[in-house]
Amino acid sequence: MQLTRFTDFSLRVLMSLAAKPDELATVAALAQEHGVSRHHLTRVVHQLGVKGYIETMRGKGGGFRLAREPEKIRVGDVVRDMESGFEIAECFQPGQSSCRLMPGCTLKAALAEAAQAFLAALDRYSLADLLSAPGQGLTPAVRSARCC
Amino acid sequence: MQLTRFTDFSLRVLMSLAAKPDELATVAALAQEHGVSRHHLTRVVHQLGVKGYIETMRGKGGGFRLAREPEKIRVGDVVRDMESGFEIAECFQPGQSSCRLMPGCTLKAALAEAAQAFLAALDRYSLADLLSAPGQGLTPAVRSARCC
Repeated sequence: MQLTRFTDFSLRVLMSLAAKPDELATVAALAQEHGVSRHHLTRVVHQLGVKGYIETMRGKGGGFRLAREPEKIRVGDVVRDMESGFEIAECFQPGQSSCRLMPGCTLKAALAEAAQAFLAALDRYSLADLLSAPGQGLTPAVRSARCC
Repeated sequence: MQLTRFTDFSLRVLMSLAAKPDELATVAALAQEHGVSRHHLTRVVHQLGVKGYIETMRGKGGGFRLAREPEKIRVGDVVRDMESGFEIAECFQPGQSSCRLMPGCTLKAALAEAAQAFLAALDRYSLADLLSAPGQGLTPAVRSARCC
Protein backbone atom coordinates (compact mmCIF):
# COMPACT_ATOMS: atom_id res chain seq x y z
CA MET A 1 0.00 0.00 0.00
CA GLN A 2 1.56 3.20 -1.14
CA LEU A 3 0.77 6.84 -1.68
CA THR A 4 1.38 8.02 -5.23
CA ARG A 5 4.67 9.72 -6.06
CA PHE A 6 2.55 12.78 -6.74
CA THR A 7 1.38 12.94 -3.12
CA ASP A 8 4.82 12.00 -1.81
CA PHE A 9 6.43 14.89 -3.69
CA SER A 10 3.59 17.24 -2.75
CA LEU A 11 4.48 16.68 0.89
CA ARG A 12 8.18 17.11 0.19
CA VAL A 13 7.61 20.39 -1.65
CA LEU A 14 5.49 21.74 1.18
CA MET A 15 8.12 20.71 3.72
CA SER A 16 10.84 22.41 1.69
CA LEU A 17 8.79 25.59 1.57
CA ALA A 18 8.07 25.41 5.29
CA ALA A 19 11.77 24.99 5.98
CA LYS A 20 12.64 28.25 4.18
CA PRO A 21 9.80 30.61 5.05
CA ASP A 22 11.65 33.74 3.98
CA GLU A 23 12.53 32.58 0.47
CA LEU A 24 10.59 32.27 -2.76
CA ALA A 25 11.09 28.87 -4.34
CA THR A 26 11.21 27.96 -8.01
CA VAL A 27 10.38 24.73 -9.77
CA ALA A 28 13.93 24.52 -11.10
CA ALA A 29 15.49 24.83 -7.65
CA LEU A 30 13.10 22.37 -6.02
CA ALA A 31 13.52 19.89 -8.89
CA GLN A 32 17.26 19.99 -8.34
CA GLU A 33 16.91 19.76 -4.55
CA HIS A 34 14.67 16.71 -4.74
CA GLY A 35 16.27 15.04 -7.75
CA VAL A 36 13.01 14.87 -9.69
CA SER A 37 12.09 16.08 -13.17
CA ARG A 38 10.91 19.67 -13.63
CA HIS A 39 7.96 18.30 -15.58
CA HIS A 40 6.74 16.20 -12.65
CA LEU A 41 7.34 18.97 -10.16
CA THR A 42 5.52 21.53 -12.32
CA ARG A 43 2.38 19.38 -12.13
CA VAL A 44 2.77 19.00 -8.36
CA VAL A 45 3.29 22.74 -7.81
CA HIS A 46 0.37 23.62 -10.08
CA GLN A 47 -1.97 21.40 -8.11
CA LEU A 48 -0.68 22.72 -4.78
CA GLY A 49 -1.57 26.19 -6.07
CA VAL A 50 -5.01 25.09 -7.23
CA LYS A 51 -5.68 23.63 -3.78
CA GLY A 52 -4.54 26.80 -2.04
CA TYR A 53 -1.43 25.50 -0.31
CA ILE A 54 1.00 27.82 -2.11
CA GLU A 55 0.88 31.30 -3.58
CA THR A 56 2.89 32.60 -6.50
CA MET A 57 4.71 35.93 -6.81
CA ARG A 58 5.16 36.82 -10.46
CA GLY A 59 7.91 38.84 -12.11
CA LYS A 60 11.67 38.95 -11.87
CA GLY A 61 12.88 37.25 -8.71
CA GLY A 62 9.44 35.70 -8.35
CA GLY A 63 8.56 32.26 -7.18
CA PHE A 64 6.20 30.62 -4.75
CA ARG A 65 5.81 30.08 -1.03
CA LEU A 66 3.35 28.61 1.42
CA ALA A 67 0.00 30.39 1.33
CA ARG A 68 -0.42 29.94 5.09
CA GLU A 69 1.65 29.04 8.12
CA PRO A 70 2.84 25.43 8.31
CA GLU A 71 1.06 25.04 11.66
CA LYS A 72 -2.20 25.60 9.76
CA ILE A 73 -1.69 22.95 7.09
CA ARG A 74 -2.93 19.51 8.09
CA VAL A 75 -1.08 16.56 6.60
CA GLY A 76 -4.33 14.63 6.24
CA ASP A 77 -5.81 17.42 4.14
CA VAL A 78 -2.77 17.46 1.84
CA VAL A 79 -3.08 13.71 1.28
CA ARG A 80 -6.85 14.00 0.69
CA ASP A 81 -6.32 16.80 -1.83
CA MET A 82 -3.33 15.42 -3.70
CA GLU A 83 -3.87 11.65 -3.73
CA SER A 84 -5.59 10.83 -7.00
CA GLY A 85 -7.91 8.35 -5.38
CA PHE A 86 -8.59 6.24 -2.37
CA GLU A 87 -9.78 3.29 -4.41
CA ILE A 88 -8.35 0.87 -1.90
CA ALA A 89 -9.69 -2.14 -3.82
CA GLU A 90 -11.20 -2.73 -7.25
CA CYS A 91 -14.75 -2.42 -5.92
CA PHE A 92 -14.16 1.31 -5.29
CA GLN A 93 -13.99 2.02 -9.03
CA PRO A 94 -17.52 2.76 -10.22
CA GLY A 95 -18.57 0.55 -13.09
CA GLN A 96 -15.17 -1.09 -13.36
CA SER A 97 -15.38 -3.78 -10.76
CA SER A 98 -15.75 -7.36 -11.84
CA CYS A 99 -16.01 -8.68 -8.30
CA ARG A 100 -18.53 -11.51 -8.08
CA LEU A 101 -19.10 -10.96 -4.38
CA MET A 102 -20.27 -7.36 -4.54
CA PRO A 103 -23.95 -7.39 -3.65
CA GLY A 104 -23.49 -9.19 -0.36
CA CYS A 105 -20.03 -7.96 0.56
CA THR A 106 -19.26 -5.30 3.13
CA LEU A 107 -15.51 -5.23 2.47
CA LYS A 108 -15.82 -1.89 0.69
CA ALA A 109 -17.37 -0.26 3.76
CA ALA A 110 -14.69 -1.75 6.01
CA LEU A 111 -11.91 -0.50 3.72
CA ALA A 112 -13.51 2.94 3.49
CA GLU A 113 -13.60 3.08 7.29
CA ALA A 114 -9.93 2.07 7.40
CA ALA A 115 -9.01 4.79 4.88
CA GLN A 116 -10.80 7.35 7.05
CA ALA A 117 -8.80 6.13 10.05
CA PHE A 118 -5.61 6.54 7.99
CA LEU A 119 -6.47 10.13 7.15
CA ALA A 120 -7.68 10.93 10.66
CA ALA A 121 -4.30 9.83 12.00
CA LEU A 122 -2.57 12.21 9.58
CA ASP A 123 -4.97 15.01 10.54
CA ARG A 124 -3.32 15.04 13.94
CA TYR A 125 -0.13 16.36 12.31
CA SER A 126 0.54 19.75 10.85
CA LEU A 127 3.20 20.47 8.26
CA ALA A 128 5.17 22.13 11.06
CA ASP A 129 5.15 18.88 13.04
CA LEU A 130 6.92 17.10 10.20
CA LEU A 131 9.93 19.36 10.52
CA SER A 132 10.25 19.27 14.24
CA ALA A 133 12.19 16.10 15.07
CA PRO A 134 14.07 16.93 18.26
CA GLY A 135 17.62 17.96 17.53
CA GLN A 136 17.19 17.36 13.83
CA GLY A 137 14.81 20.06 12.71
CA LEU A 138 15.51 21.56 9.34
CA THR A 139 14.13 24.80 10.70
CA PRO A 140 14.32 25.13 14.44
CA ALA A 141 12.19 28.26 14.12
CA VAL A 142 9.24 26.16 13.00
CA ARG A 143 7.74 24.99 16.25
CA SER A 144 5.94 21.70 16.71
CA ALA A 145 2.22 22.09 17.25
CA ARG A 146 -0.54 19.55 16.83
CA CYS A 147 -2.58 20.96 14.05
CA CYS A 148 -5.62 23.13 13.80
CA MET B 1 -3.77 4.56 -2.35
CA GLN B 2 -4.58 0.99 -3.15
CA LEU B 3 -4.08 -2.49 -1.85
CA THR B 4 -2.31 -4.79 -4.28
CA ARG B 5 -4.41 -7.06 -6.50
CA PHE B 6 -2.79 -9.90 -4.59
CA THR B 7 -4.35 -8.75 -1.31
CA ASP B 8 -7.63 -7.87 -3.00
CA PHE B 9 -7.95 -11.40 -4.43
CA SER B 10 -6.78 -12.95 -1.16
CA LEU B 11 -9.76 -11.37 0.54
CA ARG B 12 -12.09 -12.46 -2.25
CA VAL B 13 -10.87 -16.05 -2.09
CA LEU B 14 -11.34 -16.15 1.67
CA MET B 15 -14.83 -14.70 1.30
CA SER B 16 -15.72 -17.29 -1.32
CA LEU B 17 -14.53 -20.07 0.96
CA ALA B 18 -16.44 -18.62 3.91
CA ALA B 19 -19.58 -18.47 1.78
CA LYS B 20 -19.43 -22.19 1.01
CA PRO B 21 -18.21 -23.78 4.23
CA ASP B 22 -19.26 -27.30 3.26
CA GLU B 23 -17.44 -27.43 -0.06
CA LEU B 24 -13.84 -27.95 -1.07
CA ALA B 25 -12.71 -25.31 -3.54
CA THR B 26 -10.27 -25.64 -6.40
CA VAL B 27 -8.07 -23.04 -8.07
CA ALA B 28 -9.79 -23.72 -11.38
CA ALA B 29 -13.27 -23.12 -9.98
CA LEU B 30 -12.28 -19.98 -8.07
CA ALA B 31 -10.37 -18.60 -11.07
CA GLN B 32 -13.51 -18.99 -13.15
CA GLU B 33 -15.73 -17.53 -10.41
CA HIS B 34 -13.55 -14.43 -10.03
CA GLY B 35 -12.53 -14.02 -13.66
CA VAL B 36 -8.82 -14.08 -12.88
CA SER B 37 -5.99 -16.21 -14.24
CA ARG B 38 -5.27 -19.57 -12.63
CA HIS B 39 -1.62 -18.55 -12.44
CA HIS B 40 -2.40 -15.50 -10.30
CA LEU B 41 -4.85 -17.39 -8.13
CA THR B 42 -2.39 -20.24 -7.58
CA ARG B 43 0.06 -17.78 -6.05
CA VAL B 44 -2.67 -16.28 -3.88
CA VAL B 45 -3.88 -19.69 -2.67
CA HIS B 46 -0.33 -20.89 -2.01
CA GLN B 47 0.38 -17.87 0.20
CA LEU B 48 -2.96 -18.21 2.02
CA GLY B 49 -1.90 -21.77 2.82
CA VAL B 50 1.56 -20.69 3.98
CA LYS B 51 -0.03 -18.14 6.31
CA GLY B 52 -2.43 -20.71 7.73
CA TYR B 53 -5.71 -19.32 6.43
CA ILE B 54 -6.62 -22.37 4.33
CA GLU B 55 -6.00 -26.09 4.51
CA THR B 56 -5.71 -28.49 1.60
CA MET B 57 -7.27 -31.93 1.23
CA ARG B 58 -5.30 -33.99 -1.26
CA GLY B 59 -6.47 -36.73 -3.58
CA LYS B 60 -9.42 -37.24 -5.87
CA GLY B 61 -12.21 -34.79 -5.07
CA GLY B 62 -9.72 -32.80 -3.02
CA GLY B 63 -9.40 -29.06 -2.73
CA PHE B 64 -9.05 -26.48 -0.03
CA ARG B 65 -11.17 -24.75 2.57
CA LEU B 66 -10.78 -22.28 5.42
CA ALA B 67 -8.48 -23.56 8.14
CA ARG B 68 -10.59 -21.90 10.83
CA GLU B 69 -14.01 -20.34 11.24
CA PRO B 70 -14.57 -17.02 9.42
CA GLU B 71 -15.42 -15.40 12.75
CA LYS B 72 -11.82 -16.11 13.81
CA ILE B 73 -10.11 -14.54 10.82
CA ARG B 74 -9.41 -10.82 11.25
CA VAL B 75 -9.42 -8.76 8.08
CA GLY B 76 -6.54 -6.65 9.38
CA ASP B 77 -4.40 -9.77 9.80
CA VAL B 78 -5.13 -10.91 6.24
CA VAL B 79 -4.07 -7.52 4.88
CA ARG B 80 -0.93 -7.51 7.06
CA ASP B 81 -0.01 -11.02 5.90
CA MET B 82 -0.79 -10.68 2.20
CA GLU B 83 0.09 -7.09 1.35
CA SER B 84 3.64 -7.13 0.02
CA GLY B 85 4.58 -3.98 1.87
CA PHE B 86 3.37 -0.98 3.72
CA GLU B 87 5.98 1.31 2.19
CA ILE B 88 3.55 4.21 2.19
CA ALA B 89 6.18 6.59 0.81
CA GLU B 90 9.65 6.24 -0.72
CA CYS B 91 11.36 6.83 2.62
CA PHE B 92 10.03 3.45 3.86
CA GLN B 93 12.29 1.58 1.43
CA PRO B 94 15.60 0.96 3.20
CA GLY B 95 18.55 2.25 1.24
CA GLN B 96 16.42 3.26 -1.71
CA SER B 97 15.19 6.66 -0.65
CA SER B 98 16.62 9.74 -2.28
CA CYS B 99 14.61 12.12 -0.13
CA ARG B 100 16.68 15.18 0.80
CA LEU B 101 14.57 15.90 3.87
CA MET B 102 15.12 12.62 5.67
CA PRO B 103 17.27 13.42 8.70
CA GLY B 104 14.94 16.08 10.05
CA CYS B 105 11.64 14.75 8.78
CA THR B 106 9.04 12.98 10.85
CA LEU B 107 6.68 12.23 7.96
CA LYS B 108 7.69 8.57 8.01
CA ALA B 109 6.61 8.21 11.64
CA ALA B 110 3.30 9.97 10.91
CA LEU B 111 2.61 7.71 7.92
CA ALA B 112 3.53 4.61 9.91
CA GLU B 113 1.06 5.69 12.60
CA ALA B 114 -1.60 6.21 9.92
CA ALA B 115 -0.95 2.75 8.45
CA GLN B 116 -1.38 1.27 11.92
CA ALA B 117 -4.70 3.10 12.24
CA PHE B 118 -5.76 1.67 8.85
CA LEU B 119 -4.99 -1.88 9.99
CA ALA B 120 -6.52 -1.35 13.44
CA ALA B 121 -9.78 -0.32 11.75
CA LEU B 122 -9.74 -3.55 9.72
CA ASP B 123 -8.96 -5.57 12.84
CA ARG B 124 -12.45 -4.74 14.05
CA TYR B 125 -13.89 -6.87 11.25
CA SER B 126 -13.82 -10.61 10.88
CA LEU B 127 -14.17 -12.43 7.60
CA ALA B 128 -17.69 -13.35 8.73
CA ASP B 129 -18.57 -9.67 9.05
CA LEU B 130 -17.77 -9.12 5.38
CA LEU B 131 -20.50 -11.51 4.33
CA SER B 132 -23.19 -10.26 6.60
CA ALA B 133 -24.73 -7.27 4.89
CA PRO B 134 -28.33 -7.24 6.08
CA GLY B 135 -30.61 -8.91 3.58
CA GLN B 136 -27.78 -9.46 1.17
CA GLY B 137 -25.61 -12.04 2.85
CA LEU B 138 -24.09 -14.64 0.59
CA THR B 139 -24.40 -17.05 3.45
CA PRO B 140 -27.06 -16.14 5.95
CA ALA B 141 -25.70 -18.90 8.18
CA VAL B 142 -22.52 -16.95 8.71
CA ARG B 143 -23.41 -14.57 11.49
CA SER B 144 -21.90 -11.15 11.94
CA ALA B 145 -19.60 -10.88 14.89
CA ARG B 146 -16.94 -8.33 15.62
CA CYS B 147 -13.79 -10.31 15.55
CA CYS B 148 -11.65 -12.10 18.08
